[in-house]
Amino acid sequence: MKLQVTQENLHKALSAVARVASGRSTLPILSNILLKTVNNRLSISATNLDIAITQLVGSKISKEGSITVPARLMQDFIASLPSGIIDLQLEDNKLLIKTDKYQSTINGISAEDYPVMPALSAKNKIEIDTQVLKKALQQVVFTASNDDARPVLTGVYFNSFEGDIYIVATDSYRLAEKKLMTSKDSIQLLLPASSINDLLRVMSDVGDKIQVNYDDQQVQFTIGDVELVTRLIDGVYPDYRKLIPKDFAISATLDKAEFINITKVSSLFARESAGSITLHIDEDTNQLKIQSIASQVGENTAVAAAKVVGSGTITLNSRYLLDALNAIEEDSVTFSFNGKLTPSLLKGVGSKNYQHIIMPLKS
Amino acid sequence: MKLQVTQENLHKALSAVARVASGRSTLPILSNILLKTVNNRLSISATNLDIAITQLVGSKISKEGSITVPARLMQDFIASLPSGIIDLQLEDNKLLIKTDKYQSTINGISAEDYPVMPALSAKNKIEIDTQVLKKALQQVVFTASNDDARPVLTGVYFNSFEGDIYIVATDSYRLAEKKLMTSKDSIQLLLPASSINDLLRVMSDVGDKIQVNYDDQQVQFTIGDVELVTRLIDGVYPDYRKLIPKDFAISATLDKAEFINITKVSSLFARESAGSITLHIDEDTNQLKIQSIASQVGENTAVAAAKVVGSGTITLNSRYLLDALNAIEEDSVTFSFNGKLTPSLLKGVGSKNYQHIIMPLKS
Repeated sequence: MKLQVTQENLHKALSAVARVASGRSTLPILSNILLKTVNNRLSISATNLDIAITQLVGSKISKEGSITVPARLMQDFIASLPSGIIDLQLEDNKLLIKTDKYQSTINGISAEDYPVMPALSAKNKIEIDTQVLKKALQQVVFTASNDDARPVLTGVYFNSFEGDIYIVATDSYRLAEKKLMTSKDSIQLLLPASSINDLLRVMSDVGDKIQVNYDDQQVQFTIGDVELVTRLIDGVYPDYRKLIPKDFAISATLDKAEFINITKVSSLFARESAGSITLHIDEDTNQLKIQSIASQVGENTAVAAAKVVGSGTITLNSRYLLDALNAIEEDSVTFSFNGKLTPSLLKGVGSKNYQHIIMPLKS
Repeated sequence: MKLQVTQENLHKALSAVARVASGRSTLPILSNILLKTVNNRLSISATNLDIAITQLVGSKISKEGSITVPARLMQDFIASLPSGIIDLQLEDNKLLIKTDKYQSTINGISAEDYPVMPALSAKNKIEIDTQVLKKALQQVVFTASNDDARPVLTGVYFNSFEGDIYIVATDSYRLAEKKLMTSKDSIQLLLPASSINDLLRVMSDVGDKIQVNYDDQQVQFTIGDVELVTRLIDGVYPDYRKLIPKDFAISATLDKAEFINITKVSSLFARESAGSITLHIDEDTNQLKIQSIASQVGENTAVAAAKVVGSGTITLNSRYLLDALNAIEEDSVTFSFNGKLTPSLLKGVGSKNYQHIIMPLKS
């Protein structure tokens, strides 16, 4: 392998790819990235066996070849170099990197030992607007569970229902659902939330459309020169639609920024109680009031004016409430529930495509 | 105690003071701050027994009094409130805090239990330009030791010598010295580096002059409305001047930014060897060359053009070299040494008041 590439292009590609390579894997080669010449371009890949990501970089190739090198060192090293042309040359599994002032040798491992993701078997395909998908994933992915005890809940579920495609995630304490797009396709794809987070990182602002190819094992996303393949999670997603209440007896509609502010202040007094805050909606005063009590430290009451229907009290985790409010795009928000023990719902005023459920705490 | 204060002023004062209060102390009251009415102003103090810091805030006082409250909660809470007037009122060791929308109670501990630093016994006094002192302390403080085994080396030493006041710090592996100002005063003050770091935090951009009062136990800095008192370290500072070589056989003068860059790149290959890099100065090529070798990973050579006198090789810790280069203000720097085993010196070209010594590593 012998080629020339610009520092700018190589640096950008390494930033997108290298973080997938993990130093913590039991398989040492997974902390490496794979460099490979492909049709007069340099292909840079990394995988953690759940996902594989590849970016192609324009380069001047004088000799074909491939090698794997430590991802972090390669990334940090290229990032430190001044902009300009970089020479890469392979000699006996050693990668020589040269600029006019720098000359270094990085010890590699043969590309033959690098694990390859299986090819997609079928040709199912949808196309999604990149910015629409990015926003939707950001609104949903953080409600997926981190707990491997129930693998299906660590996923983000793409599913079609009555002519629309929805994405949803839940850790059983909260749930976020976004209507993504109208589509005749019938899909049920359960993607690891960790893969979604990797996808979000490379989605920055590249490409207008994202190509999604899938079979029953894997999904491949193609955005410009970047290709990301992720395995699917095996399992049946809970029938979450029947968990979302249709009607609510009690609701408050108020300014989102103010709701965020009174929640934040209240959460300071909820550190002792794992974030537990109590919300009171009062039809007589047209107020939403939040109380938090820390027996050691003190207590706090904060109020905001709201348009109120019904009166009632519910206790929630303040962090979940803040996460939900921050995920809502609209400036006004409606918060609804039926009683102390049933799910509460948050929706932006005027929004028809995003809803967020939070289960109450026992108080 | 009953008073009114603006959120802006209270927030600013808490930011300056609260971080001195430590949640990790064995004396629980030290995680509190002291609020006290003084001559129609609110005095806010914190101490960790090494230093005490006090800021006065303008306020409308309707009843005198004092209380201590948890520093972190008070700071986070006031920071979260919207700007405007805040009412503070004391009722049985509970501090009531009220704005139009927020009402909270923070449980306090009586001010009588709060430790007070002893008053200064003498009236020695110097006055220093705030920005000059700030810059000088930043150039020196990071070379002090973190190791309590030799307490004098954890200090920053203010000392007069032949009509000038110098400040110096060393951890025995490196040393930084700054000539601060011309003065007839004879001073020898050894201040904890931790106190200097706290001082730097409150020095932001307030006040043109800083008043320094001292006796043989304590130093008091007064900057505008902020007063910081620190104890002195007991002990005799090493006679460091005799450790600094007067003449050098080998030196390279080069662009500082380029020196930083080749050092950074080289340090990436020095992770295995605890940062060890080898610098070669070569009179024939007029180059400074840095080599680093990581047996596992690879090796790197980086060169920069320099104005060179003599030829030689020395091995240094790359982090110490980067710290020194970043502390130098000038754009060009001279790096000098006599041989593999003697101290090396870094100086900005044209600088007469800052020098930085780094001891070589055995290689």
